[in-house]
Amino acid sequence: MMQRDLSAFFRPRAVALIGAAEDKTKIRGRILAQLVMGGYAGGIFPIHATHKAVQGVPTCKSIAAAPRPVDLALVAIPAASVPQALEECADAGVKSALVFSSGFAEEEGSAPRELQARVRDIARRRGILVAGPNSVGFLNVAELLAATFSPAIDFAALPRLRDNTTSRRIGIISQSGGLGFALFNRGLRRHLAFGTIVTTGNEADLDACDVLDFMLEDERTGAVLMFVETIRRGRRFVELARRALALGKPIIVAKIGRSTAGTRAAVSHTASLTGSDAAYEAVFRRYGVIRADDQEDMLDIAAAATLCPPVTGKRVGIVTISGGVGGWMADTIAGAGLDVPEFSAALQGRIRGFLPSYGAAFNPIDITAQAIQNDHRVRSVETLEAADEIDAMVVISSLVNDNRLAAEKAALAPIVAHRRKPILAYSYTLPSEESRAHLAELGLPCYTSLRGPALALSALHRFAMARAAATQAPAAPWVIPNKLARAREAALRLLDAAGPTLCECDAQQVLAIYGIQGPPSRLVKTPAAAAIAADALGYPVALKIQSPDLPHKSDVGGVVLGLGDAEAVAGAAETMLAHIAEAHPTAAIRGLLVQKMARPGLELIAGVVDDATFGPIVTLGLGGIHVEVLRDVAATPLPVDLVTAERLQSQLRGAALFRPLRGAPGRDCAALAHLLVRLARLAGDAAGRIASIDLNPVMVYPEGEGLAVVDALIVQHPAPREMP
Amino acid sequence: MMQRDLSAFFRPRAVALIGAAEDKTKIRGRILAQLVMGGYAGGIFPIHATHKAVQGVPTCKSIAAAPRPVDLALVAIPAASVPQALEECADAGVKSALVFSSGFAEEEGSAPRELQARVRDIARRRGILVAGPNSVGFLNVAELLAATFSPAIDFAALPRLRDNTTSRRIGIISQSGGLGFALFNRGLRRHLAFGTIVTTGNEADLDACDVLDFMLEDERTGAVLMFVETIRRGRRFVELARRALALGKPIIVAKIGRSTAGTRAAVSHTASLTGSDAAYEAVFRRYGVIRADDQEDMLDIAAAATLCPPVTGKRVGIVTISGGVGGWMADTIAGAGLDVPEFSAALQGRIRGFLPSYGAAFNPIDITAQAIQNDHRVRSVETLEAADEIDAMVVISSLVNDNRLAAEKAALAPIVAHRRKPILAYSYTLPSEESRAHLAELGLPCYTSLRGPALALSALHRFAMARAAATQAPAAPWVIPNKLARAREAALRLLDAAGPTLCECDAQQVLAIYGIQGPPSRLVKTPAAAAIAADALGYPVALKIQSPDLPHKSDVGGVVLGLGDAEAVAGAAETMLAHIAEAHPTAAIRGLLVQKMARPGLELIAGVVDDATFGPIVTLGLGGIHVEVLRDVAATPLPVDLVTAERLQSQLRGAALFRPLRGAPGRDCAALAHLLVRLARLAGDAAGRIASIDLNPVMVYPEGEGLAVVDALIVQHPAPREMP
Repeated sequence: MMQRDLSAFFRPRAVALIGAAEDKTKIRGRILAQLVMGGYAGGIFPIHATHKAVQGVPTCKSIAAAPRPVDLALVAIPAASVPQALEECADAGVKSALVFSSGFAEEEGSAPRELQARVRDIARRRGILVAGPNSVGFLNVAELLAATFSPAIDFAALPRLRDNTTSRRIGIISQSGGLGFALFNRGLRRHLAFGTIVTTGNEADLDACDVLDFMLEDERTGAVLMFVETIRRGRRFVELARRALALGKPIIVAKIGRSTAGTRAAVSHTASLTGSDAAYEAVFRRYGVIRADDQEDMLDIAAAATLCPPVTGKRVGIVTISGGVGGWMADTIAGAGLDVPEFSAALQGRIRGFLPSYGAAFNPIDITAQAIQNDHRVRSVETLEAADEIDAMVVISSLVNDNRLAAEKAALAPIVAHRRKPILAYSYTLPSEESRAHLAELGLPCYTSLRGPALALSALHRFAMARAAATQAPAAPWVIPNKLARAREAALRLLDAAGPTLCECDAQQVLAIYGIQGPPSRLVKTPAAAAIAADALGYPVALKIQSPDLPHKSDVGGVVLGLGDAEAVAGAAETMLAHIAEAHPTAAIRGLLVQKMARPGLELIAGVVDDATFGPIVTLGLGGIHVEVLRDVAATPLPVDLVTAERLQSQLRGAALFRPLRGAPGRDCAALAHLLVRLARLAGDAAGRIASIDLNPVMVYPEGEGLAVVDALIVQHPAPREMP
Repeated sequence: MMQRDLSAFFRPRAVALIGAAEDKTKIRGRILAQLVMGGYAGGIFPIHATHKAVQGVPTCKSIAAAPRPVDLALVAIPAASVPQALEECADAGVKSALVFSSGFAEEEGSAPRELQARVRDIARRRGILVAGPNSVGFLNVAELLAATFSPAIDFAALPRLRDNTTSRRIGIISQSGGLGFALFNRGLRRHLAFGTIVTTGNEADLDACDVLDFMLEDERTGAVLMFVETIRRGRRFVELARRALALGKPIIVAKIGRSTAGTRAAVSHTASLTGSDAAYEAVFRRYGVIRADDQEDMLDIAAAATLCPPVTGKRVGIVTISGGVGGWMADTIAGAGLDVPEFSAALQGRIRGFLPSYGAAFNPIDITAQAIQNDHRVRSVETLEAADEIDAMVVISSLVNDNRLAAEKAALAPIVAHRRKPILAYSYTLPSEESRAHLAELGLPCYTSLRGPALALSALHRFAMARAAATQAPAAPWVIPNKLARAREAALRLLDAAGPTLCECDAQQVLAIYGIQGPPSRLVKTPAAAAIAADALGYPVALKIQSPDLPHKSDVGGVVLGLGDAEAVAGAAETMLAHIAEAHPTAAIRGLLVQKMARPGLELIAGVVDDATFGPIVTLGLGGIHVEVLRDVAATPLPVDLVTAERLQSQLRGAALFRPLRGAPGRDCAALAHLLVRLARLAGDAAGRIASIDLNPVMVYPEGEGLAVVDALIVQHPAPREMP
């Protein structure tokens, strides 16, 4: 997919301001004021029909009258006038526009939505890039370009920030105006390096994916923070997430909509449909996108991602001046799924070489409060940096007024400069501004919570694992090439012929094309035919009503299990048909499915849900009580190969049930993996057609004995849906 | 239990300093310097044999030569000299001493431990209260008494802190010197009111429970923060936790030792045995002690606990100026187990009365960024305060430079003053110092993380629930009065007669005294006798080896299940005896237990573990795969009545399995509750004798059909253990 050229937008030669005002306490006035305050060196042209100057800046009468080519127009005028202004911009050759105005799709009613559609239409028709509407704007540090009315910018810090020579700046993309600059505001306090902060507003044209693409390709960006209410192009996002993995640039996302109330707020706020949170979670997990739960969590991770060497393993060493805090940190790190291994005797010996007897050398290294009067901290860091038995280290101090850090800086600098593993500093008192500056100079991230280092290391370790997985197996294309070209045709033919709900007998036919077989069964019309079919299949059998109008057969008395002879079958069939006819007189009855009972096995459910954002998502859950009581379900987007299918199995909390346990045999995981791959292949072939597939239950038998798909339901979309 | 009188320690009339030094950069010098800097108004007497004055403060030649009665001696001299100094203090009538010196039990070796035992002995023998050794000291704000060398005190803030008129100050008790004052340092930044900060060091005499007792009874303390490596008196702690519940004063605890590495650090650091983390967790949960995972978490909870009315329910209303942040907060609050209910039509109508159409009224209330120019925030708060359908509210703003708050303060003040529900303020930008001060003046807690308000409200809601539970049922005394006085005697007689491990046949006898019955069974010696016993019991039967040397019967081939006739029984018995004789020739064999097979039911495990800190802990877990794979276990300390037993059942994640599910019947929870009560009664009667009881599995049958204890193991302590 082609990258959009955003250079005119982010690095304009000149900026025009449509809707400039004198009053700096108002939004329109503030935009101009901040543009000036930021120190942007390109041309600034307020457009004003009557005034010669606004806020002392000379104006132009119209956009067409600008003395130099304008690459970016900032638009802050009433919503109704925006389309006309954009047309004029396009006429004048302006390449991009940022619309601050609100009163579009974020409001109730059809008129505002139509207005937004017009904006989008102008952007596409005239080839002008439009950001917003309803945006708080952006800040490009490299250009000192503050095209925003956000009050959360510390302008005094901008020149220092611009002059930072790091090649691993943090980019911020936010669908919430407030949050984007709040993250920036918080990150500055930590001396983190930022590149571009963008709030995308209603995303009529330019969306979060466009900006993400730009940032990933930017050589000076090392990590991206995103606040997301909805991803408008799921497929594009997946491509970008994979690109980020390849580049080793973590995407750290806050995505709202986990709860009903959160979804209510997001939907109302953005006026857009969004996929299920479970689908987002599945995509994030699969492609190493790091999901964070709080603002400081995002910055905790971004700090380590941009300041430290990559995390390569789970073994963390701790150096502390307080035994109590060291123990607490060890608990926190272990709680995050990392290891705090006891050091080898050899390493402990090396540490004891400089540490007095009252210190502890095992991990955590407790250098005790005495360390403020000697070099034990430096020597501990040096020793752990050289040790092969840990992958990262956390150094615990009290930096409220630690003069020691200033003294140690010279000794630490060469160690830090050549470090091969992450070194994270944590202060249990609130660090002084001076201490923060010392650490920033050294290039070490400074943490003020126990959670921070633990979260950062575990998140970046998961990112590294996802990265390794992505490079191990070159991911298959979005739609799996189907060796059986006719399978797809055959499946679609059956789906075309069927109604929205395929009852089991029809679903079985579709599944069979992909090699997914249910137990032997026959569709019959009468009790007598049922008995004959049962005799042929062998006992015991199950009897199931087949009606597209009654997808939940059990709930309507449409399933009888374990029938042992022909008489029982005939009797049950008669009773069932009579009951259904009475209770559901209008239901179209295809007949009765007589099915050989599958022998018991480990019960699972497998399925597909076509997500509004990400397309087909394959799900796997432990069945019976596990899925209903414990909600133990794993999910992944397409494509699904055997490796992915096995990973999906291992994601279940109850995955241990697949292995030999208390004398019970291990389960046929290979058969299950093949089932998932076939299911995904069907879902991919019929993408946009199938809304959901439920295989419930699937009995998985001991290793080598395969599995049985005991029941199956397929539901189609009322009309084919286009991939997002 | 009597409270120790700590008034001489915390509110001394005069303080002597043994080990005063001139150099303020050294610990000994800093203690005197900070004592003076704090502004303590009592007498300060440095003891020095030769100097007339230290740091300009006139000295005394000896403690006996002090011109006025000294209530507290601060001791900062080499460890070896401490006992002699304490004796001299006692001779001079000094009531208490605080020992800063290290070199005691925190160091390796027996000499330092013996030195600490001497300190403890002097305290007990001479009736002098001794804090420490190895303490960082304490701060009593009311007395401006800084008896500490902690560098984390902002002395300029002390007078303002002392003059705060609140009756709900925060007390801090820390077994880690660094952490106690770090919490204080962080809390000051939040404008929280503190009373006393105490670091207890090695707790040779004065321990955390003594201080907790003092703080709970202090009328000006509203909540207590504790950092705990080990609780030395579990029984006392439980009493205090119950007292705290009764008083409505939350105890907020950080307890390390959740992980192996954390335990390693805690044990090495404090040189003391500690109970299992699971036992601490069980006690905390039972008695409403709030466990926190990070420093700011502790302060987040303490802020709401001391500034807000009690939390009475789970329904939270949200008022926000940013839709995105509002949605994220809703997710966070819902994720913490609270509700963010959609408002009733009537309430939404009232809100729409003042909110323009572009806002949202459903919950969260999105007053939008326009709110900075009107009174929507005040009116929203007023409306929610008056609404019966929510129990607490969170107000979201950007306080980095919100001038609005100053303007709104007058309007908010009367609402806040009369509020009946907690109002929590959250700023998504870092709040300015001015904004913090405004909120502090209003008496509203100010949060800077999404997690903060969610955590505070959910923790305090759990505290309120524990409080309600504690008042509903007046808790039984620690040792349950046994109506069957002879039961205890009979049980102890059997335990006396048995070895450390009671095999099933003996355990069954003990359990039977308390009405806990296993399936019908007989102990036999020979295969022939086994067959006869089986015939009498009825088939199928199980055969189990009985040997105190082979407690894990299954692992050694000592269990055969489902034997269907006499021949099978005799054959299995012969094989088993031969196999055991060969594989374990030295094991003492009591015989074979022939037991009627219990019919299948819902498998559970129930048991007791005698915890080193808290005594017997009753555990309940889902059996089979659940306990091994999912580790779904709940635990509670004694006493256990029927209500407690039912709560224990409901704590299991898989508790839904007890209820009717997918056609399966509900389980006999009443029978299970009775089993737990009986088990707890036995554990209480035999406290200090029984190390563990395992009933595994217990088959629980459908409602009204009872349960079966299929296997039982009791292990005794080698020698009776005293209750901690």
